[in-house]
Amino acid sequence: MMIIMHPGAPKEQIDAVIAEIEKQNLSSHPIFGVEQTIIGAVGDGHYVPKEIFEALPGVMEVQRISKPYKLASRQFHEHDSIFQLDGFHIGGTEIPIIAGPCSVESREQILEIAHAVKEAGANALRGGVFKPRTSPYSFQGLGEEGLEYMAEAREQTGLPIVTEVMAVSQIKMMEKYVDVFQLGARNMQNFNLLRALGETRIPVLFKRGMSATVEEMLMASEYILSGGNTRVILCERGIRTFETSTRNTTDINAIPVLKELTHLPVIIDPSHSTGDSKYVSNIAKAGVAAGADGVIVEVHQDPAHAVSDGKQSLTPEAFAKMVKQVKAVAEAVDRRLVSQHVTA
Amino acid sequence: MMIIMHPGAPKEQIDAVIAEIEKQNLSSHPIFGVEQTIIGAVGDGHYVPKEIFEALPGVMEVQRISKPYKLASRQFHEHDSIFQLDGFHIGGTEIPIIAGPCSVESREQILEIAHAVKEAGANALRGGVFKPRTSPYSFQGLGEEGLEYMAEAREQTGLPIVTEVMAVSQIKMMEKYVDVFQLGARNMQNFNLLRALGETRIPVLFKRGMSATVEEMLMASEYILSGGNTRVILCERGIRTFETSTRNTTDINAIPVLKELTHLPVIIDPSHSTGDSKYVSNIAKAGVAAGADGVIVEVHQDPAHAVSDGKQSLTPEAFAKMVKQVKAVAEAVDRRLVSQHVTA
Amino acid sequence: MMIIMHPGAPKEQIDAVIAEIEKQNLSSHPIFGVEQTIIGAVGDGHYVPKEIFEALPGVMEVQRISKPYKLASRQFHEHDSIFQLDGFHIGGTEIPIIAGPCSVESREQILEIAHAVKEAGANALRGGVFKPRTSPYSFQGLGEEGLEYMAEAREQTGLPIVTEVMAVSQIKMMEKYVDVFQLGARNMQNFNLLRALGETRIPVLFKRGMSATVEEMLMASEYILSGGNTRVILCERGIRTFETSTRNTTDINAIPVLKELTHLPVIIDPSHSTGDSKYVSNIAKAGVAAGADGVIVEVHQDPAHAVSDGKQSLTPEAFAKMVKQVKAVAEAVDRRLVSQHVTA
Amino acid sequence: MMIIMHPGAPKEQIDAVIAEIEKQNLSSHPIFGVEQTIIGAVGDGHYVPKEIFEALPGVMEVQRISKPYKLASRQFHEHDSIFQLDGFHIGGTEIPIIAGPCSVESREQILEIAHAVKEAGANALRGGVFKPRTSPYSFQGLGEEGLEYMAEAREQTGLPIVTEVMAVSQIKMMEKYVDVFQLGARNMQNFNLLRALGETRIPVLFKRGMSATVEEMLMASEYILSGGNTRVILCERGIRTFETSTRNTTDINAIPVLKELTHLPVIIDPSHSTGDSKYVSNIAKAGVAAGADGVIVEVHQDPAHAVSDGKQSLTPEAFAKMVKQVKAVAEAVDRRLVSQHVTA
Repeated sequence: MMIIMHPGAPKEQIDAVIAEIEKQNLSSHPIFGVEQTIIGAVGDGHYVPKEIFEALPGVMEVQRISKPYKLASRQFHEHDSIFQLDGFHIGGTEIPIIAGPCSVESREQILEIAHAVKEAGANALRGGVFKPRTSPYSFQGLGEEGLEYMAEAREQTGLPIVTEVMAVSQIKMMEKYVDVFQLGARNMQNFNLLRALGETRIPVLFKRGMSATVEEMLMASEYILSGGNTRVILCERGIRTFETSTRNTTDINAIPVLKELTHLPVIIDPSHSTGDSKYVSNIAKAGVAAGADGVIVEVHQDPAHAVSDGKQSLTPEAFAKMVKQVKAVAEAVDRRLVSQHVTA
Repeated sequence: MMIIMHPGAPKEQIDAVIAEIEKQNLSSHPIFGVEQTIIGAVGDGHYVPKEIFEALPGVMEVQRISKPYKLASRQFHEHDSIFQLDGFHIGGTEIPIIAGPCSVESREQILEIAHAVKEAGANALRGGVFKPRTSPYSFQGLGEEGLEYMAEAREQTGLPIVTEVMAVSQIKMMEKYVDVFQLGARNMQNFNLLRALGETRIPVLFKRGMSATVEEMLMASEYILSGGNTRVILCERGIRTFETSTRNTTDINAIPVLKELTHLPVIIDPSHSTGDSKYVSNIAKAGVAAGADGVIVEVHQDPAHAVSDGKQSLTPEAFAKMVKQVKAVAEAVDRRLVSQHVTA
Repeated sequence: MMIIMHPGAPKEQIDAVIAEIEKQNLSSHPIFGVEQTIIGAVGDGHYVPKEIFEALPGVMEVQRISKPYKLASRQFHEHDSIFQLDGFHIGGTEIPIIAGPCSVESREQILEIAHAVKEAGANALRGGVFKPRTSPYSFQGLGEEGLEYMAEAREQTGLPIVTEVMAVSQIKMMEKYVDVFQLGARNMQNFNLLRALGETRIPVLFKRGMSATVEEMLMASEYILSGGNTRVILCERGIRTFETSTRNTTDINAIPVLKELTHLPVIIDPSHSTGDSKYVSNIAKAGVAAGADGVIVEVHQDPAHAVSDGKQSLTPEAFAKMVKQVKAVAEAVDRRLVSQHVTA
Repeated sequence: MMIIMHPGAPKEQIDAVIAEIEKQNLSSHPIFGVEQTIIGAVGDGHYVPKEIFEALPGVMEVQRISKPYKLASRQFHEHDSIFQLDGFHIGGTEIPIIAGPCSVESREQILEIAHAVKEAGANALRGGVFKPRTSPYSFQGLGEEGLEYMAEAREQTGLPIVTEVMAVSQIKMMEKYVDVFQLGARNMQNFNLLRALGETRIPVLFKRGMSATVEEMLMASEYILSGGNTRVILCERGIRTFETSTRNTTDINAIPVLKELTHLPVIIDPSHSTGDSKYVSNIAKAGVAAGADGVIVEVHQDPAHAVSDGKQSLTPEAFAKMVKQVKAVAEAVDRRLVSQHVTA
C-alpha cells in the first residue's frame, strides 16, 4: 500500500499514518518528495482495507500494491486449477461446452433439449428454475418441479446439471439436484449468498456482475473460496457500456486478464454477452481464441416461443454448427473439446 | 409496442407477429413501408415483455411505447405521493435530512452521533448493522445487537431509524426495530428480497443500483409496489462510469427525470454518489436545487477511525454546516427543510 | 511517480528502472517489500510521461503522484483565476449567463434572439456558424456570413459573442469577430487546434469531451495555457454513460472536483448535458448550487423549427424564468448574477 | 421513423407532425393507441434527421427505423467490399496484417522494423509521424521527415505504408507518401477532416472513437464515402468503459455487428484495444475468430525505449509468434493470411 499525503501535510499527520501502518502489522517506509510525502506500507497487506488509511487527516490518496484477494490469486497458486466434473475436467486442455435453455419450461421441453444438446456435443446441461426477471410480471420459473425434470434429463443423458441459485434459503433443497450452482450476475455481490455457497462443496459457476470490475469479481470469489469451496468457475458474460447495438459488451480482454491473475478456470457466455443469437457463434469462437476454458450457451428448440431469452437462444441445429466451429478454433489454439463424454 | 420487421420479411412472418399481438390482447396496426414493415401493437402493453416478439422469425427490433411499469408511473398516479414518517412527511414541500454513520459500531458511538445529528437538524437516523462489503475480510456489522442500539438512539432522540436489509431471512427480525428499510444498491435486482419487502408495510428507501438505468429502477420498484407496499422512496446514489476522480458519478439528471416519470419521492445520497466528504455538501445542494425531496448523508464523530466509509463521512460540525447551506438552497427553490421535528 | 516491479523482478531490472529515473532528473527511493519492490521517483515529475517506465522489463505498474499538468493546477496557482470579458468578470463572485441558439440560421433570427436573451438577463451571446454534425446530410452552418450577423447582434446589444471554432484554418478569419472561442467537445483532443488556440490571445470556452476524464480535460487545457493564452474557461457538458434517459449524463461531481484541482473558471452547459429543454433549468440550478462559475444555455425563439438542437433549446420565456431561478440559487450559495451589463 | 406523441397530445399537434412528415417527402401513418398516438413516417428517411420531429410540440420521442446512413449500409450494397491495396486485397478471404511502431523515431528505427515485420509476415507498415498526445510535453512526431523514412522503408521492403493524418492541412503533403491514411480515434468526428478525406482517392483506415457507438462510426464513415472515396476500412480499437484492468475494452461484439450492418472491411487493433503487449496476441486471435478482416498491431524493436506506446508494443519475435497463431485461427474459420506478398 502506498499512502500519498497532501502537499504540505504536517509531521503529526505523517506520524499518525505511520502509527496506523504499524498497528496493521505492516512496516512503514516514508519517502519525502519535493511536493509531497509518500509512505510505503510493506508486509502482507492483501486483507488490509485501504479505506483504513483514506480517512486519516492529510491523506490524499491510497494506492494498493498487493491485490485485495489472495486465494484466487495466481501469485499464491501458480498452476491452473483443474476441477473434475461429472464426465469431464475444466481448467485443463479440454474445453467443455455447457448448453441448455434459459428456463426450464416443462418436462418435455427440458428432456428434448437435453438429448439435442448432448447429441450436438454438450458436456453439461444448463437450465433455470428460479428466474430473476427485471419485471415482476414476467415468468418466474418452475422451482423445485423444474429441478426434478432436470434430474430426469441427467438420468437420461448423463449430462451433469448447472442451475442458478438465487437465495440462501434455496441451497439446501437444490443440493439434492444440482451438480454445479450458478451464481447469477445480479447476485455477484450478494455476500450472504456467496458466503453460503462457500460452505457447500458443490462447484460454483460464478458470473461476473454487469458492472463489476475484474478485481471486484476476484474479491467476490474470495468469499466462496475462503469458506473452503475451492471449485469456482469464473464466467465472463458481458458488461454494461454505452454501446447499445448489443445487449451487453463482451469484455473479451477479461479472458486473458483473468487467466493471468487467477488460477481458476474462466469460461465465456456469448448468449448473455451479446444478447443475440446471430452473434453467439462468433463470440464463442472469439472467447476460445482468447483463452477461455469453456463455453456456456443458451439453446432452445423453439426460440420464438421460449418463455425467456428467446432472442439470444440458438436452435439445436445452430448449436451443433457452433460446436463444430468452436472445435476448429480450439484446435487452432492447441486445445480440444472434451474428447468423449463418460458418465461417472 | 412497435415491431419492426427485417427488410423483405415474408407475409407469413408478418402474420405470425400479428397473431402473437392478438394473443396478447393487443390490436395490430401494420404499416407497410418502402423498405420494411412495422407493426404497431396497441392496448395495455405495460406488462407485455418485448422479448415475446423479439424472438419471432423476421423481427428485427421491438420498441416499447408504453413504459414497462405502471404502479410507479405518474401517468396513472398524477400527483406526488407524500408519505408520513415518524415526525415528518416526505414527497411534499418539506425536505427531510437523514443522517448517521455507515455502520453501527458500538452503543456509545451510535448514541453520540444520534444526538449530534439531531442537534444539527437531521430528521431520521441511518446506520448499517449488516454490511455488504466487497471483501470478505472487512467488518461485517453488529447484526441485531446494532439494531438494539439504534432503537435506544430513537428512544433518546425521537429520530426514526433507517437501516439496510440484506436478505429475506432478516426481515422478520428487523421489523421489530426499523422505521424504514433501506434496500442497498447491490440488491436493487435481488427480486426475492424486493418481493418480500413488498409484503411488509414498512417504507422502503430504495437505492439505485450502480449500473441500473432509471427505467430498471422503476421496474424493480414495481416489485415492491405490486405487493401492496406503496411507500417507496427512490434514492440516487451515483452510477458507475469511466470517470475515476470520484467513486461514483452522481447522475443529477436522474432527479428531474424521475420526478417527471414517477410520483414517488426521490432523494439524493451525496456520500455514496461522490465517495468523498470534500464534495458531499456541494452535491447535497445540487441535488436539492435539481428537485430532490430529501437528502441522506453519512456522518461520523471520528471519520478517520470509522470502521467503514470514513473517507466519505462528514463530521457532525461539517454536517451542521451542510444543513444550513442546504436550507438556503431549499428556500431558493421554494422548498424548506422539515420545519420542526415532532416526536410522534 | 511510483514504479511497482513484478514480484521476483531481478536486481538488473530494478537497476535499469533506477537508471531511467535518474536520467529523467528525478531521484530514486526503492522500497523492498515482502512480495515486490516499489521504486519512488521524486522531483518535478509533472511532465515526465509514465509510459517511459511502463515498458521497462520487470515493471508491473506505474502510478503517478504528481498531476500530469501544472499550469492548470491550483497547486501552483492557488487563487481563482478571474478573467475580464466584455462587460463582466468570470471566475469571481458573479455568475455570468451565456445564451443563444445552437446555430446562427439567419440575420433576423440571431438579432431577435440576441435582444430576447439580453432582455432576460444574458451576459454573452452564443451561436454556431460551423456545425459539427454527426451526419453529413445535416445543416452545416452559415460560416463567415453567420459571424457578420453575430457581430451585428453584438453591436446592437453590447453582448460579447461566443462561437465554436472547428479547425486551425478558421482561426484567423474568426479572430476579427469573436470575443470567446468555443472549443467543442469533439475537438477536446484535437491537439493541433488546441496548440493554435494557445497562440491566440482570445479567451477559450473549453468543453469537456464526452468521454474525457477530468484529468484529460486539464491535460488538454495545458496545451492552450502553455502557448501563453491564460484565459481558459472549462465547461462541463455531460459525459457518455450507459444511461439513455437523457442524451448525456451531467457529471455534476466534476464541478467541485475541478474547482479543487484548478484555478480556472468552471461553467455548466445544461442544454447539452441533458439534451432536453424540460430538464435544463433544474440542472442549471444544480450546477450553480454545486459551485459552477457560470451557465451556458441554448435559447431559440421557435425550438420546433430550429435547424439543430431544437429539443434542448429553451424559448426566450423559459430562459427568462430560468434566469430568475438561477439568481435565487446563486444568492443561496453566496454568489450573484452579473449585477449589470456594462458595454465596454 | 416513428413519432410517438405525448399521452393526450391534441389534434393540432398531431396535424403539425403530419404536415412536417409530408414536408420531408415521407408519407404519414398514424396509429391511435389507447394512451398515445404514434405516427409512422414512411419513405426514404435515411437522411432525415430525427431532431426535426423531436422539437415539435407534443412529441414525446422519435425512433428511427431506417438507419441514418446509406452508403456504408449492407442494405444497399449486399456483398462485401473488397479493396485492392499494394500487394494484397482486404475484405475478402485473405486476412492482411499491418504492423509497425507507434511513432517513426528515426531512419534506422523504421527501416529495421520494416524489415523485421516483413520477415515475420506483415503485409503493410504502420508508423505515426504526427502524434496526438494527451500531454503537450510528450514527443509530437517527426513530421514530413518521418514520411521520407517510411517511403524509404517501402522502397526496401515493398510494404505499403499506413500513417495517421491529423489535420486537413497535412493531406496534400502526405498524399505524396502514404498508401493508406489512418484516421485516428480522436478525430473520428472531426468532420472537416472526414470531408477532406472523402475528396482524396487514398484508402482510409478509419478508427472507432473511444466513446463512439457502432452507429456513429457508420455515420461518420458516410462523410468519407459521400465524397466519393469508397475505400474505407473500419477498425475496432477499444472503447472506454468502467473497467480499468486494460487501457480500453475491446468491443469484440462490434466485429460481427459491423459485418452484419456494413459491406466495408473491418479490422481489429489489439494493441490499442488492450494497451498491453501481454494481451495483444490473444485478442488478435479473438478478433479473427469473431470475423475480422485484418489485424493492425504495434511492433517495436525495443519497446522499453519506444518514445510512445512501448507498453503495448510487441517485439519482432513476439510479433512473429503472433502471426503464426493468427494464421492457425484464420484457417480454423475458413480464412487465410495473405498468401504471398507481391509488390505491385
